[in-house]
Amino acid sequence: MARAVRVGAIDRGTLSYRSGVRRADLVVVCTPIGRFETVFRQLGKYLPPGAVVTDVGSTKRRVLAMAAELLPAGVHFVGSHPMAGSENAGVEFARADLFQRAQCLVVPSERVDPQAVRLVEAFWQRLEMRTTRMSADQHDRLVAQASHLPHVVASALIEVAVGGGSLDVAATGFGDTTRIASGNPDMWLDILMSNRQCLAESVDELIDRLQAIRKWLDEDQAGPIARFLKRSKQTRDAWIRRRYEEREIEP
Amino acid sequence: MARAVRVGAIDRGTLSYRSGVRRADLVVVCTPIGRFETVFRQLGKYLPPGAVVTDVGSTKRRVLAMAAELLPAGVHFVGSHPMAGSENAGVEFARADLFQRAQCLVVPSERVDPQAVRLVEAFWQRLEMRTTRMSADQHDRLVAQASHLPHVVASALIEVAVGGGSLDVAATGFGDTTRIASGNPDMWLDILMSNRQCLAESVDELIDRLQAIRKWLDEDQAGPIARFLKRSKQTRDAWIRRRYEEREIEP
Repeated sequence: MARAVRVGAIDRGTLSYRSGVRRADLVVVCTPIGRFETVFRQLGKYLPPGAVVTDVGSTKRRVLAMAAELLPAGVHFVGSHPMAGSENAGVEFARADLFQRAQCLVVPSERVDPQAVRLVEAFWQRLEMRTTRMSADQHDRLVAQASHLPHVVASALIEVAVGGGSLDVAATGFGDTTRIASGNPDMWLDILMSNRQCLAESVDELIDRLQAIRKWLDEDQAGPIARFLKRSKQTRDAWIRRRYEEREIEP
Repeated sequence: MARAVRVGAIDRGTLSYRSGVRRADLVVVCTPIGRFETVFRQLGKYLPPGAVVTDVGSTKRRVLAMAAELLPAGVHFVGSHPMAGSENAGVEFARADLFQRAQCLVVPSERVDPQAVRLVEAFWQRLEMRTTRMSADQHDRLVAQASHLPHVVASALIEVAVGGGSLDVAATGFGDTTRIASGNPDMWLDILMSNRQCLAESVDELIDRLQAIRKWLDEDQAGPIARFLKRSKQTRDAWIRRRYEEREIEP
């Protein structure tokens, strides 16, 4: 806490749930998902009625289910997932511009107060994020593909390389492709296990595609591999351009 | 050529094989591997006896076989593979420090003149590269794991994401993991096809690992996934540290 105050990340801190939240309008839960159960139970004891709770967890079905079970009736929970971060942990790596122009997925439960949803969206927008509303099912399926699968793959690529003794010839490309595997393994274990069904489906899809490629290699079929490489490059280049425009040109 | 002269990448250029190489001591072939056959045939016509030829191609078994077949007896071929680059193509992206302290794999054939090998090593060392000698078999197996497999995987991840509509929620991590898929698809097709046997083996290994992870997810087995994530992170962190030390501290 002293370091967080020193670097300007917080104005003041407390380790007491009671004094931290008993007069709170809005609480943002920023612990690993494995701690949510404990945190929600404690918040439930001290939060004033009408308070809004959100989070920054990377999966949403399980988080919404826990909130519904553990938070008292008068407290409104709206899930959030700010899509920005780095593989570094700790307040030393805090950056004021981390969220600027990045996207925040906002995930309301079906019966939540619409005003609470608008409050949470307004909060992220004040941090200059773009907000997108979606259901927990949709959220978990999309992030399994775009975030959890790449993490698993990055870690698996490292195992293949170290198993075959090829780390000594690995260069910048390998470093980029595997960067996210340097993230906090405890946090990622939580994320992957709390989204294991959607993730398993994504792993299956990737395996299917790799098996097709493996077959083309075996049969010396340059045509389909050429089309595959071209299509992926075009898709990625268009995505990068769009992303750049969104983050640079939009307010 | 005019642009290359303008940015200082070359002193002078020619499109004529004859005037380019007829008095050359050392020739470095820097075209896609699919052009090597043509280039070697032309070089063979004009190179003076005793000249040394090397290349910067990403696979070596096929290149060494082509050189043995197409270059005349008095010319010495030694394969090279400088392990540095970017996804950008063109002399506009030339950087004087690209090779500094990076690794260059030097791949002699079994019967090549040792003096030619030493000349090629000295050439890369003058560009401040660290050189490592290895056989063509070893080279192709290692780069399949550390470079060609990550490329295939990056491209496949893009297909999974675009197929599932999740590109809109993809963030920095996805961008890094897939960066290499923005590389020149023609060049990469050449590389992958010229190393398709080693690459197919690496794809199989990755599929095996993904299937194990998929099973753990299915069976809700957090233990093996925790160990897998921790091991990969430790391996990568140690690799990054070693790489950093090599590039920063060594001459």
